[in-house]
Amino acid sequence: MRLPQKLTFTKMEGIGNDYVYVWFEDLDTPLTDPAPLAIFMSDRNYGVGGDGLVLIGKSKKADFRMRMFNNDGSEGNMCGNASRCVGKFLYEHGHTGKTNITLETKSGIRTLELTLENNKVASVTVDMGRPIVKPADIPMKADGETFINQEILVNGSCIKGTGVSMGNPHFVVTMHDIASLDLPAFGPLFEYHELFPERVNTEFIEVLSRQKVRMRVWERGSGETLACGTGACAVLVACVLNNYTDKKATIELRGGELVIEWAEDGIVYMTGPAREVFSGEIELI
Amino acid sequence: MRLPQKLTFTKMEGIGNDYVYVWFEDLDTPLTDPAPLAIFMSDRNYGVGGDGLVLIGKSKKADFRMRMFNNDGSEGNMCGNASRCVGKFLYEHGHTGKTNITLETKSGIRTLELTLENNKVASVTVDMGRPIVKPADIPMKADGETFINQEILVNGSCIKGTGVSMGNPHFVVTMHDIASLDLPAFGPLFEYHELFPERVNTEFIEVLSRQKVRMRVWERGSGETLACGTGACAVLVACVLNNYTDKKATIELRGGELVIEWAEDGIVYMTGPAREVFSGEIELI
Repeated sequence: MRLPQKLTFTKMEGIGNDYVYVWFEDLDTPLTDPAPLAIFMSDRNYGVGGDGLVLIGKSKKADFRMRMFNNDGSEGNMCGNASRCVGKFLYEHGHTGKTNITLETKSGIRTLELTLENNKVASVTVDMGRPIVKPADIPMKADGETFINQEILVNGSCIKGTGVSMGNPHFVVTMHDIASLDLPAFGPLFEYHELFPERVNTEFIEVLSRQKVRMRVWERGSGETLACGTGACAVLVACVLNNYTDKKATIELRGGELVIEWAEDGIVYMTGPAREVFSGEIELI
Repeated sequence: MRLPQKLTFTKMEGIGNDYVYVWFEDLDTPLTDPAPLAIFMSDRNYGVGGDGLVLIGKSKKADFRMRMFNNDGSEGNMCGNASRCVGKFLYEHGHTGKTNITLETKSGIRTLELTLENNKVASVTVDMGRPIVKPADIPMKADGETFINQEILVNGSCIKGTGVSMGNPHFVVTMHDIASLDLPAFGPLFEYHELFPERVNTEFIEVLSRQKVRMRVWERGSGETLACGTGACAVLVACVLNNYTDKKATIELRGGELVIEWAEDGIVYMTGPAREVFSGEIELI
């Protein structure tokens, strides 16, 4: 695809994950090198600013296709919070009248279910796939079929946790008073723990009821973030495996709330808001 | 002034200082409370994103007037990097055909001199006022008329520096290899030094020639920043007082270069670039 001199964009956010969204009719003719564009557009001082750049276009395999680029220019896998925004973008910018959309991503085809209020998209439900609980596949250096509420040694203390993969590895730990937790000190002890050969995202949770869990997340490579969609899914799965919650619960993250359901078909569904922050035009330099 | 439901804005940056600029015809009818608007617009995840919000309008005392709000909602004094952007905004958005503009700010009336290339503003020269060198007025707890290349005790070491105020207090220290300096460890030792009753901005400099100085800055309350206009002015004044440089020199900051001149009229002039990053429209929530 050829780049115009001026690019029209939309900045959107889903519980604090913010990306710059650009419509490109034909994503099959790839950008020669999308990395510099993603780095430029994501820059919070010299560009539009965001966690990354999302290109949206037509697909031969599904209704639409998205490609996601991180702010370092690398291409990312599917991001739940971004795909909710893609659903809102497609409907409200007039690319589709459907409220059930199939979306081709780097992690396969996902479905988006839009909930409307006054013909605006109020929330989007995303199919986040099936959880993986076998340690060898998470990956996690442990035997057996699951790793549920088992002890690991962290900095000389025994801490219990549950391992879950949602395409990326998570370790879910129940704590008291997560608000006062010193995550920059505590998170890396899990991230670089010898048990996780590909490092790990760690969720620190407080179970508030059978329908509500509060969490903070330490993401591998990023540190503490406002929101992590796969992390919220892993938390619900871990809570169900431990019989802490029902199969559907609200997960309260620092950036906002998500409703996660581990449905009868084995798939985890995430429902949450998407917001258009502003739209604009930028001159490419 | 009444706020519309949708606000048109322009994001601009000057050597890395980025603000959101909004034109309001009449700034004399003040916003009931501009703080929430500044906080919302400055937010890099949920708003446009920037170091703050600049409102531009007409003035009864000068050609135009600016009001600057920090990202915490507090009203700021004059900022050199922002006022260059104001000059570019006024000319390129058609509010004036003049290249010599008087601007009413919270710190008094300043002049902007625009340099054009192909009818675009290539750079702007801003009158930054007169330096203050008397310690009592900087303020700095020391006797005498100046504080030039004198020793102070920092963490057990004797370090030489020069005190200058450009409306805010600066302390300029010559170093070797500023690139490898651990500023987060070193900066606070100056910021909270007992010599400075209102704390201090500290510039660490390497004199490269009589026309060029490289600097890094530790700003009180903000830590290391990409650019500090008054800091660059203080550096040139300190270099002239020490006979390190001529009265006009290029100051190389992390965010870019400024040309600073301490002119015969006693006023310090700052010349540098201004760039429009993007323009857009945001729905106020």
